[in-house]
Amino acid sequence: MQRVYNFAAGPSALPLPVLEQVQKELLNWNGMGASVLEISHRSRQFTSVVEETIAMIKSLYQISDDYEVLFIQGGGHTQFAMVPLNLCVGQCGAYALNGVWSRKAFKEAQKIAQAKEATSVEFRVPKQEEIDVSGASYFYYCSNETVNGIQYHYTPDVGVDMVCDMSSEFMSRPIDVNRYGLIFAGAQKNFGPAGVSIVIVRKDLLGKASSTVPSMLDYKTYAGYLSMYNTPPTFAIYVAHLVAKWLIDEGGVAEMERRSIIKSNLLYDTIDSSNGFYFNQVEKQSRSRMNVVFNLENKALEEHFIREAEAENLRYLKGHRILGGMRASIYNAVSIEAVEKLADFMKKFATRYA
Amino acid sequence: MQRVYNFAAGPSALPLPVLEQVQKELLNWNGMGASVLEISHRSRQFTSVVEETIAMIKSLYQISDDYEVLFIQGGGHTQFAMVPLNLCVGQCGAYALNGVWSRKAFKEAQKIAQAKEATSVEFRVPKQEEIDVSGASYFYYCSNETVNGIQYHYTPDVGVDMVCDMSSEFMSRPIDVNRYGLIFAGAQKNFGPAGVSIVIVRKDLLGKASSTVPSMLDYKTYAGYLSMYNTPPTFAIYVAHLVAKWLIDEGGVAEMERRSIIKSNLLYDTIDSSNGFYFNQVEKQSRSRMNVVFNLENKALEEHFIREAEAENLRYLKGHRILGGMRASIYNAVSIEAVEKLADFMKKFATRYA
Repeated sequence: MQRVYNFAAGPSALPLPVLEQVQKELLNWNGMGASVLEISHRSRQFTSVVEETIAMIKSLYQISDDYEVLFIQGGGHTQFAMVPLNLCVGQCGAYALNGVWSRKAFKEAQKIAQAKEATSVEFRVPKQEEIDVSGASYFYYCSNETVNGIQYHYTPDVGVDMVCDMSSEFMSRPIDVNRYGLIFAGAQKNFGPAGVSIVIVRKDLLGKASSTVPSMLDYKTYAGYLSMYNTPPTFAIYVAHLVAKWLIDEGGVAEMERRSIIKSNLLYDTIDSSNGFYFNQVEKQSRSRMNVVFNLENKALEEHFIREAEAENLRYLKGHRILGGMRASIYNAVSIEAVEKLADFMKKFATRYA
Repeated sequence: MQRVYNFAAGPSALPLPVLEQVQKELLNWNGMGASVLEISHRSRQFTSVVEETIAMIKSLYQISDDYEVLFIQGGGHTQFAMVPLNLCVGQCGAYALNGVWSRKAFKEAQKIAQAKEATSVEFRVPKQEEIDVSGASYFYYCSNETVNGIQYHYTPDVGVDMVCDMSSEFMSRPIDVNRYGLIFAGAQKNFGPAGVSIVIVRKDLLGKASSTVPSMLDYKTYAGYLSMYNTPPTFAIYVAHLVAKWLIDEGGVAEMERRSIIKSNLLYDTIDSSNGFYFNQVEKQSRSRMNVVFNLENKALEEHFIREAEAENLRYLKGHRILGGMRASIYNAVSIEAVEKLADFMKKFATRYA
């Protein structure tokens, strides 16, 4: 059986050349006579992988030496706790709520500290003037709401340190890291396997956590040890290293943005020109280029849609269990060709059942 | 280049059939048309992997339904924090200190709560009568000190709930889980890749964490969601699933114990019969069957030892950076044959340089 067109939301498609290299060297990595799964994280060879991955991330995003790049386990949910534990000193953060993930982060921050709401909107991103950060030590937002298919296409400017969950748009477009205090991203959307998050944090924000915060939830623990205070998730970092190389070979984040505009336009155009057969509830200027969420006007057809798409090797299109409907996640590793196939299928399906 | 005899302390050798299966199905897992790295943790296929891994762990250790088996990210160091955060209610734990890992766990527990010392010894495990748990809600120990090569060959009986770090002896011998309140183990020694820990916890100990404890550090979060409250480290769990299958096929934990006695005896006999050329400082009845630590009387020969061993494909024998010397880690996936080769080499080396 061949490989399918994979539109999974995360864990999600990885570049085929990356997978092929992992496969090829799985029994004997880098001349060590052992798998990358079987060697010490403190070996010179693996330490180089960590150093090179950091260097490539810095190069891809043009990150200055004012920032640390860290690898941390526990996914976005662990970041939801680490952010307030490290950055709520006296005051806490103000959170922009506009989807599942920003709301989850807010809930966790409230459990831990006195987080407040900066704004709350639905089916769109907030406007700059709707954001209220008064009395907050940082402003928190999720730049791409994976479940809801909502993405910021502007960078807020609010006068306090900005913290951004970029999990599902990481490395998909150029950003100005200097605008942020802290950025985090679970690798499993756009940058590798599940099991590692990338954190980019301005150095002056380190070392503010209370002395009772668990060592593993203090960013300083990672910054001081090349993210190897303890055994890191070596395989996940190794795959991220290969993905970073692939990104550079393919032309970097500007090229990823170019492709993602083409891919997302293909699908939104198909939806918008379907005379309501397909619909998307997100405000047009807030639509995600990573996760195209849509419903069928005739809900009864959704199961047919999934089944017939599967027959054409178009897979993992079912929407998030919270929202239902469909979701096509079109991260960096999803080719323009795959999205063309999907758009074609959508048009034919609409013609057949309209 | 061929695969070497791998004596790494962790991440460490995995069974070759496991690695071969991972390699074979890396591009297309389980008929899904995608890598196991690329599919949703909430897919039926992956959920089965989690359920089956739990079932196999329960079967291998004969664990009753009074216990939950959890998969948690963040390694042993995260457990060092989770244990006091979840189990220090009013009183805290008493810690037996006899090596690097028990001391690290104690230090972290002191950061978080009023942990106390139950006993402190060197080069051996404490005797039952040396352990003082008065005023403690649990007794904590590390059953195999990986760095120091010290292992408990008896199960303490102290009258309070026992918490045990079994990272480097997990699945290497039969245990009576009913004797414990909580057992944890980083997978990267004996059960899989780095990036996942296995926690076995008695159900009545869940739900005692304070409401301000981060969700990801509350055992209850995992127990309630099949360890999938958020995206778990899917690849690490998938490999652990294959390792568990391999363990069952090979004869289970009783067979692993039989082999580890043979393997460790081979090395300790070589050390003890070397007329002091090699020496091991650990009390004989506390010697580890997993990590055989030794020094050369003539320290200047240690570099030669490493280099000549490497020439015979005997690798990753250098001791932990804290202790120096040599360490042969002989976990389940290290064959008797590999250990025979090492013992032979040690004898020849001693003859050549004595």
